[in-house]
Amino acid sequence: MNRKEFRDLASPEAAREAIDSLSLEGGIDRVTLEEARGRVLVARLEAELDVPGFDRASLDGYALRARETFGADEADPARLEVVGAVHAGEEPTIDLEDGQAVEISTGAVMPSGADAMVPVERTDRVEARSTDNAVSETADDGDEVLIRTSVAPGDNVMFAGADVAAGERALGPGTTITTRDIGLLSALGVDEVPVRAKPRVGIVSTGDELVRPGEDLDSGRGEIYDVNSYTIAAGVEDAGGEAVLYPHAGDDQAEMERVLREAASECDLVLSSGSTSASAVDVIYRIIEEQGELLLHGVSVKPGKPMLVGRLESSAYVGLPGYPVSAMMVFRTFVAPAIRNAAGLAEPTAATVSGRMARSERYGEGRLRLMPVGLAQNDDDETLVYPVDKGSGATTSLAEADGVVTVAPETDYLEEGESVTVDLFSSDVRPPTLLGVGEDDPAMNRLLDGLENPRYLSVGSRPAVRRLREGVPDVAVIAGPLERDLEADELGRWSREWGLVVRAGNPQELEGLADLVDRDLRFVNRTADSGLRSSLEAEIDDLAADRGTDRQALVAAIDGFDLGLRAHESPARKVIAGDADAGLGLRSTADRLDLGFVSLGDQPVRVFANPDRTAKQSVQELAAALEEPPTEH
Amino acid sequence: MNRKEFRDLASPEAAREAIDSLSLEGGIDRVTLEEARGRVLVARLEAELDVPGFDRASLDGYALRARETFGADEADPARLEVVGAVHAGEEPTIDLEDGQAVEISTGAVMPSGADAMVPVERTDRVEARSTDNAVSETADDGDEVLIRTSVAPGDNVMFAGADVAAGERALGPGTTITTRDIGLLSALGVDEVPVRAKPRVGIVSTGDELVRPGEDLDSGRGEIYDVNSYTIAAGVEDAGGEAVLYPHAGDDQAEMERVLREAASECDLVLSSGSTSASAVDVIYRIIEEQGELLLHGVSVKPGKPMLVGRLESSAYVGLPGYPVSAMMVFRTFVAPAIRNAAGLAEPTAATVSGRMARSERYGEGRLRLMPVGLAQNDDDETLVYPVDKGSGATTSLAEADGVVTVAPETDYLEEGESVTVDLFSSDVRPPTLLGVGEDDPAMNRLLDGLENPRYLSVGSRPAVRRLREGVPDVAVIAGPLERDLEADELGRWSREWGLVVRAGNPQELEGLADLVDRDLRFVNRTADSGLRSSLEAEIDDLAADRGTDRQALVAAIDGFDLGLRAHESPARKVIAGDADAGLGLRSTADRLDLGFVSLGDQPVRVFANPDRTAKQSVQELAAALEEPPTEH
Repeated sequence: MNRKEFRDLASPEAAREAIDSLSLEGGIDRVTLEEARGRVLVARLEAELDVPGFDRASLDGYALRARETFGADEADPARLEVVGAVHAGEEPTIDLEDGQAVEISTGAVMPSGADAMVPVERTDRVEARSTDNAVSETADDGDEVLIRTSVAPGDNVMFAGADVAAGERALGPGTTITTRDIGLLSALGVDEVPVRAKPRVGIVSTGDELVRPGEDLDSGRGEIYDVNSYTIAAGVEDAGGEAVLYPHAGDDQAEMERVLREAASECDLVLSSGSTSASAVDVIYRIIEEQGELLLHGVSVKPGKPMLVGRLESSAYVGLPGYPVSAMMVFRTFVAPAIRNAAGLAEPTAATVSGRMARSERYGEGRLRLMPVGLAQNDDDETLVYPVDKGSGATTSLAEADGVVTVAPETDYLEEGESVTVDLFSSDVRPPTLLGVGEDDPAMNRLLDGLENPRYLSVGSRPAVRRLREGVPDVAVIAGPLERDLEADELGRWSREWGLVVRAGNPQELEGLADLVDRDLRFVNRTADSGLRSSLEAEIDDLAADRGTDRQALVAAIDGFDLGLRAHESPARKVIAGDADAGLGLRSTADRLDLGFVSLGDQPVRVFANPDRTAKQSVQELAAALEEPPTEH
Repeated sequence: MNRKEFRDLASPEAAREAIDSLSLEGGIDRVTLEEARGRVLVARLEAELDVPGFDRASLDGYALRARETFGADEADPARLEVVGAVHAGEEPTIDLEDGQAVEISTGAVMPSGADAMVPVERTDRVEARSTDNAVSETADDGDEVLIRTSVAPGDNVMFAGADVAAGERALGPGTTITTRDIGLLSALGVDEVPVRAKPRVGIVSTGDELVRPGEDLDSGRGEIYDVNSYTIAAGVEDAGGEAVLYPHAGDDQAEMERVLREAASECDLVLSSGSTSASAVDVIYRIIEEQGELLLHGVSVKPGKPMLVGRLESSAYVGLPGYPVSAMMVFRTFVAPAIRNAAGLAEPTAATVSGRMARSERYGEGRLRLMPVGLAQNDDDETLVYPVDKGSGATTSLAEADGVVTVAPETDYLEEGESVTVDLFSSDVRPPTLLGVGEDDPAMNRLLDGLENPRYLSVGSRPAVRRLREGVPDVAVIAGPLERDLEADELGRWSREWGLVVRAGNPQELEGLADLVDRDLRFVNRTADSGLRSSLEAEIDDLAADRGTDRQALVAAIDGFDLGLRAHESPARKVIAGDADAGLGLRSTADRLDLGFVSLGDQPVRVFANPDRTAKQSVQELAAALEEPPTEH
């Protein structure tokens, strides 16, 4: 095999500079007011008109000349002739003269000759005074009005342009348009604004093994669903770009080149990722080097070593690592800031939390490390930080992480309890209210649905015991026999029926464990971490004792005993796929999947609380939910 | 006039409870992966398959049986026959036997019989050993491979289901789908997810005077642009709802009823607003009371007193105040949380800042007050908080505000320097880097464009002097003569030519100020706050001295002298509209609007810095920009 080695890794700073040197900016879009929220104005916007465009009554009442009210009060009201009414949306036809008032509605145009208004609450409408000076009667449709207060010129009137005046600078270039700015734009009658076009980001995933979600997958051929395309697309849109997904390029060189060039001709930035095979990387490397410009190849960061930065045609180009977690970490650290910048958006508000490392973490490769971490809250509301790492090929670890700890290249060891700063994935990330670990169990899954924002890591029963001792999780869920007592509070328990999941109707007429030993049947086991496996092991010990034989001999006779799968449904699915005759599993799983079931017994599932966390609200909520033990269905 | 009085105002808590009692929830949407970001999952999502779906090579190298490498090292490598190759996306056809290895690519399916793999870096491909035991030659296409390390079973292999296993709980109900969750969903092959439908919120603006932005406005009839519809729509979408704009209902009762019922039949919530006239409020009140259910009318909050809460048909209904600032404050405080809740979204991360009141604020109405405020930063990085209030009819104040201070009903006075907590409008609100006040000037507008996120309040020159003395703004821009010395650092100055803006070509042949006094011409002035007005007053004094006459006599002879408009372009626009023969203005304005101009002189525009803020970065940037004084164009 011939492969590009990354002999001279660039520094992370150099990678940032290389990406900053690329121009990702799109042009200018003109968008309607409905589409303007969150977009970035490209030019200063000046008011083209006065707001309001006329002298406007601020209240319901009477427009008049202020000087006619001087000295008026409750005891000695001014009396004016009502010569008409103006409502909002009407043109006043009256020219006010001395001794006159006009009924006016909120928002209506002040009639000519009036310079103030009096709110209706401080007036009384009355019949015209008869000549003999008798007390006039209050009447809504009377011809006169008594004004029981004095006002100054301009009182209760909003003058033309008082809100915004023509020629005023309304919004500056670079303004990210908020709901409040939309109010200002509407007031100015603006229905379209020039904004920065979102940078168009083409996403090219390469690899013969990639299948789009929703399509059929052939695991036998090593096919996997394409994770990067959709994840990076979502990341691009989070950063203010417009994502364009291109068809999978496969590993064929000509095809890859065609797709990359098409994307480059249509986009401001092309991101490739997907295939982790060296040959694909080589092909892309060659295409960029020959047809474009390669600025940088290989960065001293983990993950992210195999990053490429360059240009292809008039587009910027960044090659991301193939593994989804690596691709997203690199995208987030190096590419998203450049997209935001091109979109004219400010860096999002820094959201960081400080916490203590829940366990020590060794790392000595001398590269900057971007370490995804999860958070847990201990009883003192102190934040515990634990690395989330399901292995370099894992696609899904980030969904279990809350943020990233950046570890300097010269740091090769983080101690347990050491204080670290976590950059949350976004400012609206909320650490889980409850962190649970343990057995994968359908009843537990339903219990979790009743809690707000829990996180559950189905690591199995045995590792759960260890993790609870280490003190990170709030609760541990343990199925089957307990090897030794746990120093933990049992919050509750239920029982589940376990055994062999077989084909529907049990056509091979399995009756129990002995069939697996004595007959030629293919079995699928669970991993040694699972509580089901512990119960199975105990059954085998019993059978060996019954038969007076060696345990090992029985195990060796079971075809597939060593094939341990991680989750409660996986063996059953092997049975459905025809890869096995029997799988270790639960009755509830067999029922759910319409399979047959041979019972081997019942086992308890116990929920233990971390003794330091029993007072925590989410733990108490779980305890309350456990007072009515979950049923299997 | 007959009007509903709000005699028994409900408490803000009662208003919240009434709105919470309405059901705003929509149904369930099924959205594609591309549309899923930010949506809220309605049901638990369990893995339907193992990820990966097969035992997967984690690196490029050789698949083999681990036990064949036991004891191997650099000095004593194990030698295996290479019996084939498996690439990603291929089905392995080989069944590995003792002494054999298979070349394998990252991501490829482990061949049957292999239980571990060795990365290519720890191997050498060699020619098959000849029988005479000579040193074999390294050759990329040799038939054998030397393994220079030992591995354990499982090394460098990701087992089926190791990432996610079938049946595992992948995402819980209520999860707001992030970019990272989209990675998990894609890995599981899920291309469509059930999410909460966005609550449909119908927006009905009423009022004969409302005109949609983009359409022509007849200010003479008191028409104004509709601000509430677009602002509330943007607020609804910010809160996770779907906004539906209905046509303006006008003030006609039958029409209003028809539009409200149509909206109610199509939406989960109807919001009305717009007309502030009492008659419209009465009509809506009656429609809700007769055709639906009125839960609440009038809330003890300022702004927001005339709020209605109820039901119409199967829809929830909230009536917002008509004034845009009031409508948005009520929407934000009472309605947005209910929409977010119905959308399943968490309350946004609290973004609050503490600051000191920049000036005292009196308020004694005994209602809860929601006070929009702007922020300024003083030299000690302390935050100063000042109320933003352009009067109750103002539509645009919120664009000049950063957040809200909630003042308890029993507080009737906030002292200058008193500490208050500001709820920012959102967590990404950034207070302005520079707060400027002063003259409205086109050259200043251009200078501001070069700064990042400045705020400029064009209050005029005279108020700017006062405000600078009070210590809130960073800089003040003052045009024309200074009445007395300012204790402030002059950062820079430029000169502008001022005079009379007249019709294009100056058809009336104006020559100067004397024409306004002596001829029958209509003039439009600027307000007394403006620096242009100060220069005009000085010219009038000179003219009075020349003529040996009284200043007042001259002023009285100018038709329109008392009509002062607020912004530098407003008088010019009155000339364009034919409402005036001459307006006080700048040569640059006349040139820009293709009008004629009669010069009356030049006046200085000076930029003064708050003496405590000269070291502030934005002030220094402005000072640097002022080293090259701005030109008029």
